[in-house]
Amino acid sequence: MSEQTLTFPDHVANKLEPHLPRLGPDRVEMPAATSLLPFVTLTFATSLDSGLSLAPGTRTTLSGSPSKAMTHYLRSRHDAICIGVGTAVADDPGLNCRLDGAASQPRPIVIDPALRWNFSTESTVMRLARAGRGLAPFIITANCEPHASQKALLEGLGGKYLVLPPATLAKQRFQWDDILQVIAAQGLRSIMVEGGGEVINSLLEPQNAGHVGSVIVTIAPTWLGQGSVCVCPARRMGPDGQPVAAARLTEPHWIPLGEDVVLCGKLAK
Amino acid sequence: MSEQTLTFPDHVANKLEPHLPRLGPDRVEMPAATSLLPFVTLTFATSLDSGLSLAPGTRTTLSGSPSKAMTHYLRSRHDAICIGVGTAVADDPGLNCRLDGAASQPRPIVIDPALRWNFSTESTVMRLARAGRGLAPFIITANCEPHASQKALLEGLGGKYLVLPPATLAKQRFQWDDILQVIAAQGLRSIMVEGGGEVINSLLEPQNAGHVGSVIVTIAPTWLGQGSVCVCPARRMGPDGQPVAAARLTEPHWIPLGEDVVLCGKLAK
Repeated sequence: MSEQTLTFPDHVANKLEPHLPRLGPDRVEMPAATSLLPFVTLTFATSLDSGLSLAPGTRTTLSGSPSKAMTHYLRSRHDAICIGVGTAVADDPGLNCRLDGAASQPRPIVIDPALRWNFSTESTVMRLARAGRGLAPFIITANCEPHASQKALLEGLGGKYLVLPPATLAKQRFQWDDILQVIAAQGLRSIMVEGGGEVINSLLEPQNAGHVGSVIVTIAPTWLGQGSVCVCPARRMGPDGQPVAAARLTEPHWIPLGEDVVLCGKLAK
Repeated sequence: MSEQTLTFPDHVANKLEPHLPRLGPDRVEMPAATSLLPFVTLTFATSLDSGLSLAPGTRTTLSGSPSKAMTHYLRSRHDAICIGVGTAVADDPGLNCRLDGAASQPRPIVIDPALRWNFSTESTVMRLARAGRGLAPFIITANCEPHASQKALLEGLGGKYLVLPPATLAKQRFQWDDILQVIAAQGLRSIMVEGGGEVINSLLEPQNAGHVGSVIVTIAPTWLGQGSVCVCPARRMGPDGQPVAAARLTEPHWIPLGEDVVLCGKLAK
């Protein structure tokens, strides 16, 4: 568990500002267009061949230290951070904000329909919560029978299970509308979705584009090669039955950052 | 066949300069390190998910008009342009330089081991050569028996077959060393390799990285989705038997250009 705090330069933060949930007197102001659901920022780092990691269940460091500091700056600008269970299992992530002088910590949210994440007191996110350096997670699930010891651990640290009816699951997945409603009900007004591949690909699908307020992608000058876990949305067909681009960003803005580039934009609706 | 000439702004061209074959009194000065073989610039345009086209045999417009003008500027800075036979068949490309005021035309080179490219007088590259707006191609092959009518057409326009012994083929592919030697023997001192996927992926493999002087990738803010033709080099294993990054660029330089970004760098050896 790294102790290091990070700093992120104001001149880069200013370039990101148009792509983030609005700052208001009460930290985050709800965007008018999505006033009932949280503002969603979809953010992830890939290789040039769209890889997130070298293999399923492997954590691969792609981007450089300025990009890492950016991730923590972005975390400081959102009420919550959301990942899928696959990432929780593979990465044992901290999901806290290590930005120097951060006023508050984001709430980690793990989407885990079947409660596959076998966390313990030694999981990084639990250790950080115990040390007061992060918050305990909210776990969105359709399984209303967690292990008693895990339930006690989670709730003792201030986390909780958010249980959706099993009927909300389709092909083992929740709908984003249901996920975002249950998050909004917790008073969380902005959420940064960080991964993994399945979660990202599902948010890039046309029927979910309306839920995404902003996309921030970091690209590292590396090719991971065949067999890596990729961001690659499902094929999309045009009216003539021929494939068309699966997703597109409007108002793209490219910001070179160290050896990487950061791409900000909005998903075309 | 588009008649339009293109212009490319000097301030962007200046940023590309460190990544191009050196200009000398005799147009291109041979880089000392590869003095026997041509300087190779590997260049292509992909989507965010590393797609070149939506499906095999399909031409997909990815990048915007400033990036297109850059391609023609790059062509003006090389003696030759090289593509694989798959791209010749799928795209019927012009392979000329439409930059306003270009002093000379690059030589198109098609790598076609088995002579699959069934060109005719109406193929774009032949029409351009006939109109004096481009050069006829050199075709690198292991098949020494072309169709008589195609041979007459090609040679009548100033093109030719460059025949390598069938023994130089491994798995239907030439080695880059053989390809570059036969190109150098034609007095061509710099070559821009433009595609398609197979050709690009093979140049990204570690054993070929030494042949590549510069890599220039344009990325468009689009995801093509699953099923597209991708740049994704073969998996590479580390000494411990675990996968490692397949290829990496050193000295990366990102240049936003219209809605796209241009990444220049050198392949890590």
